[in-house]
Amino acid sequence: MSEFVKGLEGIVAAQTEMSYINGEKGVLEYVGIPIGELSAHSTFEETVFLLWNRRLPTKGELAEFTGNLRDRYSMPDGIASRVTSVPKTAEPMHVLRTMISALGMHDTDPNANDADNARAKCLNILGQAPAMVAAFDRHRRGLPVIEPDTSLTFAENFLYMLNGEKPTETMARAFDICMILHADHGLNNSTFAARVVISTLSDVYSALTAAVGSLRGPLHGGANEGVMKMLNEVPSVDAVEDHVMGMLKRKDKIMGFGHRVYKAKDPRAKDLQGLAEQLAKDTGNEDLFAKSHAIEKIMEREVAAKGIYPNVDFYSATTYHCIGLQLDLFTPMFALSRLAGWSGHILEQLDGNRLFRPTADYIGPHAVAYTPIEKR
Amino acid sequence: MSEFVKGLEGIVAAQTEMSYINGEKGVLEYVGIPIGELSAHSTFEETVFLLWNRRLPTKGELAEFTGNLRDRYSMPDGIASRVTSVPKTAEPMHVLRTMISALGMHDTDPNANDADNARAKCLNILGQAPAMVAAFDRHRRGLPVIEPDTSLTFAENFLYMLNGEKPTETMARAFDICMILHADHGLNNSTFAARVVISTLSDVYSALTAAVGSLRGPLHGGANEGVMKMLNEVPSVDAVEDHVMGMLKRKDKIMGFGHRVYKAKDPRAKDLQGLAEQLAKDTGNEDLFAKSHAIEKIMEREVAAKGIYPNVDFYSATTYHCIGLQLDLFTPMFALSRLAGWSGHILEQLDGNRLFRPTADYIGPHAVAYTPIEKR
Repeated sequence: MSEFVKGLEGIVAAQTEMSYINGEKGVLEYVGIPIGELSAHSTFEETVFLLWNRRLPTKGELAEFTGNLRDRYSMPDGIASRVTSVPKTAEPMHVLRTMISALGMHDTDPNANDADNARAKCLNILGQAPAMVAAFDRHRRGLPVIEPDTSLTFAENFLYMLNGEKPTETMARAFDICMILHADHGLNNSTFAARVVISTLSDVYSALTAAVGSLRGPLHGGANEGVMKMLNEVPSVDAVEDHVMGMLKRKDKIMGFGHRVYKAKDPRAKDLQGLAEQLAKDTGNEDLFAKSHAIEKIMEREVAAKGIYPNVDFYSATTYHCIGLQLDLFTPMFALSRLAGWSGHILEQLDGNRLFRPTADYIGPHAVAYTPIEKR
Repeated sequence: MSEFVKGLEGIVAAQTEMSYINGEKGVLEYVGIPIGELSAHSTFEETVFLLWNRRLPTKGELAEFTGNLRDRYSMPDGIASRVTSVPKTAEPMHVLRTMISALGMHDTDPNANDADNARAKCLNILGQAPAMVAAFDRHRRGLPVIEPDTSLTFAENFLYMLNGEKPTETMARAFDICMILHADHGLNNSTFAARVVISTLSDVYSALTAAVGSLRGPLHGGANEGVMKMLNEVPSVDAVEDHVMGMLKRKDKIMGFGHRVYKAKDPRAKDLQGLAEQLAKDTGNEDLFAKSHAIEKIMEREVAAKGIYPNVDFYSATTYHCIGLQLDLFTPMFALSRLAGWSGHILEQLDGNRLFRPTADYIGPHAVAYTPIEKR
């Protein structure tokens, strides 16, 4: 038996043909294409096709795929009515997890796991998830739910359903880039959770529900919320130096820095930084960006030597804030995008599956007698 | 980087003080106490206390723990109304997964993960889960939902809510023993899934939802359904020989045999065999037991040399059938019991947590150029 490897660090638990990460050099590629190329030239829809088919689509294929996705923008009635009966105090990630799970109750063949059926279910969930998040957010704000507009892209349609008006081109493109950047990232915890769950040959709903639950945690997707909270705690750009140095002295965790895999600047953070800067200017949030940038500079001076650099969450916080998203929608946005990667990994796992069944190291006593309760 | 270990077989991914398995010798202990001792002398409630506290309770402690559990037998209104609005065609495991997830929307502090809060949430879910399953089953049968009876044990109360009448002593004891035997089993897939998900410091709802989803799969908890389906396919005891030999020749999977960990007879199967035999007699299902036993004998003759023995699912199928459970309630029964183990592992993982974040082996191309769509 092998030694106990806490957190499975360094253990290779799956093979993938989707994303490649070189943590030392700060490289991320989807199917071999550098992430910067995709964020510059691609769209979320095209990126999903790329991840699921391991090649870029032709014009006809992209049109067909996009059309199929748009056909799935609407929730079935049974789910729509569930969303608007959720307590308004509920957190959006708990709602998204529950509604994806609930879709499995409304599917009359929920466990079909052959490649075609699994892919169709993934597409269906990806198509409907934005409506779940947007409808719940409108419901809790006491606003009428807005039906999806199938003439809009995934990114545009989500912002439209959320805000009741079509986003500007800049906003929509910024949001689309966020979706591209977050779509897949090797065997992160939520992706791993999805692969673990599907490996019992359970079903797509179970696997994606698990992934959403995992992503919620502050050590994973929940971190972008933490970054924003930290930024809100710093009253001004001038206060950054004292604030951050104080945190470092107290050994507080600086949210948005450091990553299990990257020992260089996260390539997604680079793209997001440019996006955040532009959006901050466009929306009068220059101070927020300046605070972020000042924190990065201090961290570079103080801890970059230890391999601690900004990660994807750091500038996505500023980006999402400038797009006008409420704090607790940051992680659901991450989920909407990562559904693409989770789904791709589920399809990979089903193709040549082997049950994940590691062992535990039992560290308690042995051969203990059962003492009758009177004698305890 | 290590080599790719498919399914993480043989990798030690966690430490535990709850269950110990010796697969070669066919030993299972909970906190050092052989499983046979517990099924002979303990109760499910006491076993849960044992797993969560790593010692047997005193009389006073057991009374307090049992009282707290009984106080949680009722679903909150918001959940009860959700259960009875589920499509009647839904599968109980999809319903249980969704309703546990939904509890997180009704909790005003769902993410509290300190030891006291996490334990309270686990107890709450364990207390309410039987009502979720029973209420859905009554709803789909067009019968009125039955309120729990807090004077009854966990096992009695579930059967009461399901059938509308209190179970006989034999039935209740048999069901209680099933609950004891399934409560924990090292790092099986669903338990591992729960630990993976909680390791992002997400929340108890997310982790238990993931576990239910994992258990649903036919390579895990779903296997007991498969056993029953196989038994139903064999018309008589006399037909067993030809049927099983035919399956072996065609290399069909014989459900209920073989286990990643056990290379001897699963100790839980031993206990369940006696239980199944007695119940079969009591309920006029002697033929069913005889078929099971005949299958075991053939398998012993043909494949025991390869280390393939009956596992926990094999005789639990007959047991559940004799208790009067419908086929698609078999896996939910497993879940009701395993909630104890999942919860214990969540508490263990939170105590000294490290994020599960293995790596993936990327096997696709590199440095691929982004080709504009016109040129594809």
